[in-house]
Amino acid sequence: MATLPTLNRQIVFKARPQGLPTPACFELLTSPVPEPTQGQVLVRNHVLSVDPYIRMRMEAVDSYAPVMRMGEVLVGRTAGQVVASRASGFREGDWVVGRLGWQDFSVAQAGELQAIDTTLAPASAYLGALGSTGVTAWVGLMLFGQPKPGETVLVSAASGAVGGVVGQLARHLGCRAVGIAGGEAKCAQVKQAYGFDECVDYKAANFNEALRLALPQGVDVYFDNVGGPILDAVLPLVNHFGRIPLCGLVSQYNADQPYGVKHLREVFNRRITLRGFVLSDHRDQFEAANQALLAAYAAGHLKHRETLTHGLENAPQAFIQMLQGAHFGKQLVQIT
Amino acid sequence: MATLPTLNRQIVFKARPQGLPTPACFELLTSPVPEPTQGQVLVRNHVLSVDPYIRMRMEAVDSYAPVMRMGEVLVGRTAGQVVASRASGFREGDWVVGRLGWQDFSVAQAGELQAIDTTLAPASAYLGALGSTGVTAWVGLMLFGQPKPGETVLVSAASGAVGGVVGQLARHLGCRAVGIAGGEAKCAQVKQAYGFDECVDYKAANFNEALRLALPQGVDVYFDNVGGPILDAVLPLVNHFGRIPLCGLVSQYNADQPYGVKHLREVFNRRITLRGFVLSDHRDQFEAANQALLAAYAAGHLKHRETLTHGLENAPQAFIQMLQGAHFGKQLVQIT
Repeated sequence: MATLPTLNRQIVFKARPQGLPTPACFELLTSPVPEPTQGQVLVRNHVLSVDPYIRMRMEAVDSYAPVMRMGEVLVGRTAGQVVASRASGFREGDWVVGRLGWQDFSVAQAGELQAIDTTLAPASAYLGALGSTGVTAWVGLMLFGQPKPGETVLVSAASGAVGGVVGQLARHLGCRAVGIAGGEAKCAQVKQAYGFDECVDYKAANFNEALRLALPQGVDVYFDNVGGPILDAVLPLVNHFGRIPLCGLVSQYNADQPYGVKHLREVFNRRITLRGFVLSDHRDQFEAANQALLAAYAAGHLKHRETLTHGLENAPQAFIQMLQGAHFGKQLVQIT
Repeated sequence: MATLPTLNRQIVFKARPQGLPTPACFELLTSPVPEPTQGQVLVRNHVLSVDPYIRMRMEAVDSYAPVMRMGEVLVGRTAGQVVASRASGFREGDWVVGRLGWQDFSVAQAGELQAIDTTLAPASAYLGALGSTGVTAWVGLMLFGQPKPGETVLVSAASGAVGGVVGQLARHLGCRAVGIAGGEAKCAQVKQAYGFDECVDYKAANFNEALRLALPQGVDVYFDNVGGPILDAVLPLVNHFGRIPLCGLVSQYNADQPYGVKHLREVFNRRITLRGFVLSDHRDQFEAANQALLAAYAAGHLKHRETLTHGLENAPQAFIQMLQGAHFGKQLVQIT
């Protein structure tokens, strides 16, 4: 460990945002690199995952999970390497992922870490298509979307990390995959990078009409990451007995006032099932999901795409830009 | 048949309503009593069921079911007696229920009729707690609500026909049953007639606070008959993994503009399942439901309550008043 830094940079929560977070919501602090005690591992974080759900945890009121306290290190998964181990099962140099936070170094219990095989895929993929992101997509689609071959699967935030995996899994299952994304360029990318059959630009003036035209057979599964007005536009296009797994509400995270969804009567008329889900409730599915994702990746049916920002100090800016939709695929921060 | 009238009065659909229907939407026509042909039965309708769903079928655009055409006899179930039979299995004097419409006499195929046993319960109960109404309550609660003993079941339109049965079934299953109804008097009646543990007046100024106080353990199942602002008030009180069977949207049927539901983020936060259902999709459940309802009725656990309007000619007024919440229990029209 002679060549390692002796100081650990951490980004902590400084102030609750009003609407879109600003750099003033974060603070970069420096402290000595911690020492692992018995049963613990010291990890050097190489890549950090920056996720929309964090915005919800910056609120003053608990949402799906408890809010963050002031001064707390920002939550987030990282991929890194063990630099010192006092736990059996982990050795120096091992690659791991875990919920290790926005910092250079983390100590963790062995049970909080998963070993990853960087000969199968790059470490960053284990934070994206082969990590929690991919598992979220798989669980939401398979458990709550329950798509059948030939059905149409619509995905919002299709250019995002979860959405991209959902579309690829749907295609692989024999479904028609239609995405919704912001801007023509992103829509083109969604089709090219992930193989969606169609992708509709929600920023276009004729969005409602374009959406209808892209869905000649209606929607059987709407995998929703955004809620709000896009959900409202989709509801009248959902087929009878359609399923809507609700994975997130990105459109609402920075909103002053919640959007009022007007077309809920379609949930009754069309016997729709709308189901909110959070990944941590479904640990019993992780192994099946991971196996399916790795197999699809190995066979070339699942592509990982990422937007990489360099430098831990730029993580707040990467997070803010991601909430504005500046990224494509998984938003990551290269720390080392 | 010598003493029977030779003329049949029918109430037909005359004009689409704007907002609340008016008597001008209906017309009473007279024609000769029809003759049954081979395989048919002629039924004299004694009691007519008048239901909120009809309002949706008066729209210009199909909803959960096709809209009614102008000049069509209003749809509705009746209880009546066979006055002439050319079908095996039915004899003169037999009591039956069927979807026979707003009229004095109906011809029907034998397969469209169900025989009822008026020694077990009065004929009108087979249009309410022991009929489609009761089956709707049972299917929605058991299939989609899935209440467990000790859970809290909340029901909107608790003073209505479906709501009253839901509350009684929930109590019988060992749940706490809380109703929502319009006005103090109705709330008192809901508790007294059906045995709800609590009932909250949605017309009261302190509705939100009173609702919260009536639900110290939150809501595990919200059986929703009304949608709109009451659904919005309930969502923040639903427990994690709560279930919301959506049985109807009475609050929205006469609305100019659909209400925008603001608290859908709770569906995500609390992993709620919101499920629209329509009884006709669940014929495979009818036998189990009917058996359960009859058993509960026989054992005294299920009470049928009705509001009876006299005279077929007053059916439109009964329907209009019911949409305004003037009734308690099942709204029926005594034809004979």
